[in-house]
Amino acid sequence: MRGKLYGVGLGPGDPELMTLRAHRLIAGAGVVAYPTLAGAQSFARSIAADAIAPGAREIVMDVPMTTARAPAQAAYDKGAKEIAGVLEQGEDVICLCEGDPFFYGSFMYLFARLSARFEIEVVPGVTSIAACAARAGRPLVARNERLTVLPGPLPEDELRRRIEGAEAVAIMKVGRHLAKIRGVIEDLGLTGGAVYVERASLPEEVVLPLAEAPERAPYFSMILLTKGADPWL
Amino acid sequence: MRGKLYGVGLGPGDPELMTLRAHRLIAGAGVVAYPTLAGAQSFARSIAADAIAPGAREIVMDVPMTTARAPAQAAYDKGAKEIAGVLEQGEDVICLCEGDPFFYGSFMYLFARLSARFEIEVVPGVTSIAACAARAGRPLVARNERLTVLPGPLPEDELRRRIEGAEAVAIMKVGRHLAKIRGVIEDLGLTGGAVYVERASLPEEVVLPLAEAPERAPYFSMILLTKGADPWL
Repeated sequence: MRGKLYGVGLGPGDPELMTLRAHRLIAGAGVVAYPTLAGAQSFARSIAADAIAPGAREIVMDVPMTTARAPAQAAYDKGAKEIAGVLEQGEDVICLCEGDPFFYGSFMYLFARLSARFEIEVVPGVTSIAACAARAGRPLVARNERLTVLPGPLPEDELRRRIEGAEAVAIMKVGRHLAKIRGVIEDLGLTGGAVYVERASLPEEVVLPLAEAPERAPYFSMILLTKGADPWL
Repeated sequence: MRGKLYGVGLGPGDPELMTLRAHRLIAGAGVVAYPTLAGAQSFARSIAADAIAPGAREIVMDVPMTTARAPAQAAYDKGAKEIAGVLEQGEDVICLCEGDPFFYGSFMYLFARLSARFEIEVVPGVTSIAACAARAGRPLVARNERLTVLPGPLPEDELRRRIEGAEAVAIMKVGRHLAKIRGVIEDLGLTGGAVYVERASLPEEVVLPLAEAPERAPYFSMILLTKGADPWL
């Protein structure tokens, strides 16, 4: 009997925002797996830390810091092989995923490598978007509004075009793209309706009108944008 | 000392997909509030049922079944007044919200009415989108992809235009709009990349390729659409 792989969403950072199911699976896990970036501490592991049983085996997939695809793919190839070895021994593996596993999550690389051979369950988690809206006190979308989610690294002209054609917008992964994104929003005259959120739900969280955002943003930052008057009154 | 209002996301339906924080707040609540639609059972209350303390007071906001805005607004006016009365007595109120309170959630109507006068905390929840993707085994978005969320009631030509210009698409609130939406996706030649999900995470869940979806869909149904080849390999 083979083991089962779980891709478990942990939510945006506050350990209390993990689901009951995520907590139960992690607390009962004999083997957990998670990626790290160039040897840095794993954010996912830090969210789950208090739930991980003492003595659980930890499979670490260290992804090198580069925009090239091959080295990251090699890291996931290696991790998938190690996880497959555990599953073949009949033991389950709980993969720790910040946010939601299928929303810009690296779990999909393991899913792509292992789903044909092993049973996989994805446990959805609270996304950073929902957390940012909650912390900013800003409804994301109401009634028949449309929501567009854009990654900050998109080229400037595409960002501009997509924001122009959109209604409610969430811009993810702001980080070093902040100045570019801010310029586009300013050009479109939308700065007044934009809020900047950094590390939502964590103690070091920042929530500010975009006009007052800092010069430098971490990777885990977001801009929420609504057009026109409050639509939910 | 005034009480605090909590808008608590309960996730998509499986009670295990509520967050630890949602569970803790509900279990400790002396007063819970939730909307019902034309006297029907409250879905939010059914998700939270096992967590609600015996003897908790329940404030029910019954919203009439009509597309007119005024009767619904009157129901939220009345509910907000009753909640305000409790908060003014110094007691907290936990408002139960299916999914996430700020993602197409009716909690924003209470938020709009009460946030100027009372402290409000929104506890984000797992959205139906994340749950549908998890249950369908389909990553929503990877890397620098864009996600467009569309409500099914949009007019046919707008749906067509928005889907044409989009990459990954989630169409919410399919319900009685299924035939129209299916027609648009078929016309665009995208049926092969579309999956239909009904009541994700509940025992009566349905997950099917769109081509095999039933003729009639409940309100809590969704279509997920990706274009081109698997982008996450």
